[in-house]
Amino acid sequence: MSAEEGPVRESPSLRWSAGEGLASRRDQLIAEEPLAIEIAFERQGRSVVRVWGVTMRTPGHDEELALGLLHAEGLVAGMDDVRGSGPRAVNARGEKVATWRVALARAPRDEGRVLREGLAGAGCGLCGRPTLEGLPFGDRSASALPPLSCEKLAELPELLRGRQPAFAATGGCHGAALCGADGSLRLAREDVGRHNAVDKAVGAALRQGLDFSELILVLSGRAGFELVQKAAAAGLPAVIAVGAPSSAAVELAQGAGLTLIGFARPGRFNVYTHAGRLDLADARFRLAEA
Amino acid sequence: MSAEEGPVRESPSLRWSAGEGLASRRDQLIAEEPLAIEIAFERQGRSVVRVWGVTMRTPGHDEELALGLLHAEGLVAGMDDVRGSGPRAVNARGEKVATWRVALARAPRDEGRVLREGLAGAGCGLCGRPTLEGLPFGDRSASALPPLSCEKLAELPELLRGRQPAFAATGGCHGAALCGADGSLRLAREDVGRHNAVDKAVGAALRQGLDFSELILVLSGRAGFELVQKAAAAGLPAVIAVGAPSSAAVELAQGAGLTLIGFARPGRFNVYTHAGRLDLADARFRLAEA
Repeated sequence: MSAEEGPVRESPSLRWSAGEGLASRRDQLIAEEPLAIEIAFERQGRSVVRVWGVTMRTPGHDEELALGLLHAEGLVAGMDDVRGSGPRAVNARGEKVATWRVALARAPRDEGRVLREGLAGAGCGLCGRPTLEGLPFGDRSASALPPLSCEKLAELPELLRGRQPAFAATGGCHGAALCGADGSLRLAREDVGRHNAVDKAVGAALRQGLDFSELILVLSGRAGFELVQKAAAAGLPAVIAVGAPSSAAVELAQGAGLTLIGFARPGRFNVYTHAGRLDLADARFRLAEA
Repeated sequence: MSAEEGPVRESPSLRWSAGEGLASRRDQLIAEEPLAIEIAFERQGRSVVRVWGVTMRTPGHDEELALGLLHAEGLVAGMDDVRGSGPRAVNARGEKVATWRVALARAPRDEGRVLREGLAGAGCGLCGRPTLEGLPFGDRSASALPPLSCEKLAELPELLRGRQPAFAATGGCHGAALCGADGSLRLAREDVGRHNAVDKAVGAALRQGLDFSELILVLSGRAGFELVQKAAAAGLPAVIAVGAPSSAAVELAQGAGLTLIGFARPGRFNVYTHAGRLDLADARFRLAEA
């Protein structure tokens, strides 16, 4: 299957149902394949290439994935930090694996950390970290976000759903979108890994030069720690998820000044942190259990 | 929140709905907190302790999580390989983080790999691996599994659902169960990370001395690569998931001799690989599109 392109792979399957027995069919599966991400930079006049990490991802938007991941890790603040970027069929260790190499404009400040923790930093953003301290946060203090309409916020997951063709075909992947405070969808990305979908969306916004402080991250699934961490690292002021948040996600959002919303569906949602960004001019209150 | 016990944390939240406006409430969140996993062993008469990895997990069954993870990584084949195991409040690097240390009966064979890739091997089972080659597989050749009843297989996800109290409270976690070929549920575990739920179930089976070759792994969510990889490493002959499989999961299951079933719900499911383990005595066939 791995020679194909695009985010969907066909596979034979047998469908069993109690009423109809077995029927052979062709099923559409979400593509899940490894991508190595490398960084290259100059150090004291010498070229250095490092395998930053390997992640299982859905092929497509690989550059955005690499940029978003390196952004979340604090290595790429903006496109000024990138000298070039391109695909390779073999990684720096000579292993034959789909690879995306990002050439950095300058060597990483804390190169020791990069070399020590680089591999572990790939993908889910936390694996291998000893503690939660020292995670990079973006600056939300100058956020230009106007008050958010509750009605419009509740519509964002449906808006994202309409931009998930791979999910419609396979039922096997997650989506992430970046939306404006006016409820307009700026861009959406899909991936078998929900962290990858966020990295791709962030990488796309980086390339397009969007201002993260004016955007809302919309998630098709749960709001786990690592996704809120990526939003915080990007400087996004709000995250709205279809699924449940975790305790660590709420703690992190509280500390990072992020508005975190979960269980969003048409006409309702729950707010867990920094509700001050909601436009409450017309909202009725029932604060029974303060 | 982090001083509490158990898998659920309370948090204030505001629920907004279009009809009723805002209401303050207390919400139950799935607990998500870091756990460092350490291995200790003797090498040439000297004690060695290594931080194997850090994973975000739901507290509880930490020993099973550690054992299941080390089993998936090929470091613990059975309880004979474990000299002892216990919690610590500080890890081997002096960092204050919940830690579980497993004392191995002997030093890892390929200690170079352990020290080089240990950190990266934690959690999702793939982050940091350069390629898919060399992943450990269990031996399924002697599987004692009798033919599986389609009716009973289709009931397993509901059986698991009945053993997910943290999901019922929070909507924010995954479940994994190990069932016999007769459709009986042997054990079930929950976690905010679906890979952790599988590691806990596998670790529990290891401690109880269950024979993996007679068991089916049931997943509350999708069947991604890393979950099927853990099943393959444990020597489990079949995986049945409520959600979609990915392309890599199907490829891996095909190569590893694993029966992979997705989209399971009452009265129906799809089989992707090794359908020969199903009991087709009574099944009607409609093989229209071979």
